Amino acid sequence: VTGSVLVVGTGLIGTSIGLALQGERRVALTDIDDASLQTAVDRGAGEQWDGGPADVAVVAVPPGRTAAVLADLVSRNVAPVLTHVASCQSAVQRDLLALGVSSDTICGGHPLAGRELTGPAAATADLFSGRPWAVCPLPPTSDSARLAVVALATACGAQPVEMSPGAHDRAVALTSHLPQMAASAVAAQLLGGDASLAGPGLQDTTRIAASSPDLWVDILSANAAQVAPLVARASEDLRQVAAALEALAENPTAMDAAADVRALLQRGADGRARVPVKRGVLDRDVAIVAVRIPDRPGSLVQVLGTAALADINVEDVRVEHLPGRPTGVVELLVQSGAVAALSAALTAAGLEVLRSG
Amino acid sequence: VTGSVLVVGTGLIGTSIGLALQGERRVALTDIDDASLQTAVDRGAGEQWDGGPADVAVVAVPPGRTAAVLADLVSRNVAPVLTHVASCQSAVQRDLLALGVSSDTICGGHPLAGRELTGPAAATADLFSGRPWAVCPLPPTSDSARLAVVALATACGAQPVEMSPGAHDRAVALTSHLPQMAASAVAAQLLGGDASLAGPGLQDTTRIAASSPDLWVDILSANAAQVAPLVARASEDLRQVAAALEALAENPTAMDAAADVRALLQRGADGRARVPVKRGVLDRDVAIVAVRIPDRPGSLVQVLGTAALADINVEDVRVEHLPGRPTGVVELLVQSGAVAALSAALTAAGLEVLRSG
Repeated sequence: VTGSVLVVGTGLIGTSIGLALQGERRVALTDIDDASLQTAVDRGAGEQWDGGPADVAVVAVPPGRTAAVLADLVSRNVAPVLTHVASCQSAVQRDLLALGVSSDTICGGHPLAGRELTGPAAATADLFSGRPWAVCPLPPTSDSARLAVVALATACGAQPVEMSPGAHDRAVALTSHLPQMAASAVAAQLLGGDASLAGPGLQDTTRIAASSPDLWVDILSANAAQVAPLVARASEDLRQVAAALEALAENPTAMDAAADVRALLQRGADGRARVPVKRGVLDRDVAIVAVRIPDRPGSLVQVLGTAALADINVEDVRVEHLPGRPTGVVELLVQSGAVAALSAALTAAGLEVLRSG
Repeated sequence: VTGSVLVVGTGLIGTSIGLALQGERRVALTDIDDASLQTAVDRGAGEQWDGGPADVAVVAVPPGRTAAVLADLVSRNVAPVLTHVASCQSAVQRDLLALGVSSDTICGGHPLAGRELTGPAAATADLFSGRPWAVCPLPPTSDSARLAVVALATACGAQPVEMSPGAHDRAVALTSHLPQMAASAVAAQLLGGDASLAGPGLQDTTRIAASSPDLWVDILSANAAQVAPLVARASEDLRQVAAALEALAENPTAMDAAADVRALLQRGADGRARVPVKRGVLDRDVAIVAVRIPDRPGSLVQVLGTAALADINVEDVRVEHLPGRPTGVVELLVQSGAVAALSAALTAAGLEVLRSG
């Protein structure tokens, strides 16, 4: 145990940081909400802060309050290194400037974890394990502050990824904020129509549209400068395809129009190939084995039990819940090299393999 | 066994129709591809057609050839009722008109099944079981032809849904074709950026973008008249949000702009609430129980085995594959009434329940 960490804000992220650092650092905790603080202490995330100094202070409060808390800690000389966990780095940077705070002790940070869970009760020691943790130095940030935040992320089990605040905000705009708006735009059209023929494609594409509008308007507003051009570009791509489809509706043999539609489909397929299934694992590294299952308790367990007995790690599972089907199709995502062995094991177990590879 | 059915085209759909009708109808099969026909016969989907008459003829050939095959069968007086399985009803209607064919014996149809599988080897008797089967009469279609197609769909185990060709084409444009274009538009933006911070939201939203551009350009072209206005509307929604986000980037306190962003998020959440998880089952009828699992063979099986032992039917499973996490979170979708029992069973089995309800 070397060094001490002060965690300000004992929500999901702050409490998980405390839990992850047990055995690595001494952790002091504080929160404006006494019940939340007590829960975090009871869960073993650290001790209640006595107001003394720490080696690193982590501000894990809502994004809109982050800069003010950082400014207060700086003015009180609480720690020689300060970081935070806000999902928009430039907004914190801007707020600090507005408060007149410029310090080489502050280095931004953002652990990519905890998407849907909230509160200290949901915190776990391995929340950051193997996940990216963006480390985003500001212009005045000292090397020692930056390296201390890298060390903190590593101590939490995360993979630190150094990038500028702007690069971070562009990356989350692309991988999180644009998909949210697109899902909302698709789902919004359902209000005027008939969703009775819905299938798995619609379910996947619109799943995140169920997220809280209040939460998302805050997230999107904070990162508006980065999200706006991406949404505009997606809108323009769709506008061009709509025009091409209109031309095809008039003249089904319009080759240029068909080429325009195909071009976006191809760019989409190429872009999708860059989405990691797991860190460093792309679609092309994994393959799908599809199995037919009856829709009753225990069906999935038979399929997955067969995989487990064959010592094959299932990376992902999708139940093709064709709405209303009394039977379903389960898709198992496995490393490409495991497809043949899994298909053989499933067939030997009397299961019907529909596709593999 | 009452009545006889001729199936023209022994691909996945045609062969599955033959298999589904065994014991219900006498089935004759034909295909221009001898090997495909032989596979279908070998699988027990029916006997090779001797050229004789049938009570119902089902044309299950590629959409572009559907009208020509129907016209040929009508001219040869093969059956008093003819139907097809094309995914765009208006295109077949238009092609029939172009061929000068207008007959009260033809009634369109489209079983919603078989999304990703192809060929007679993948056919199964229960492919249509409980799934919607659109029955789409044309203006001249007789009541007896329409009712015969409803009876055929029912005999195959499907749920017949009567709708006009236009209503059908609008419905699939909304639930299948628009989501495809939106997924492509999101994934296309990844080509210019950094996908290293990708999470489950991006994976879900772009999954169908991996589909074949060649296949989809045909599907979209056939239904272009219905897809074009939907894509245009989604594009316009995104354009307005992009403008609002631009205003928020300039002035973070612009209330009107924030209201515009929130409005699309709210419409999206409302629209998403109309997507059936299963036939007649909406998001609000089911609840999620989230459990932490280690990423090793057998982890999922323990979770699902616990559910099966407790006699709880898991409607859907999602592995929250936070990329690179050595552990993951599995989300079990169950009927709302089963949440408490499942959480108790999982906890009793020593598993960590993160959320329920």
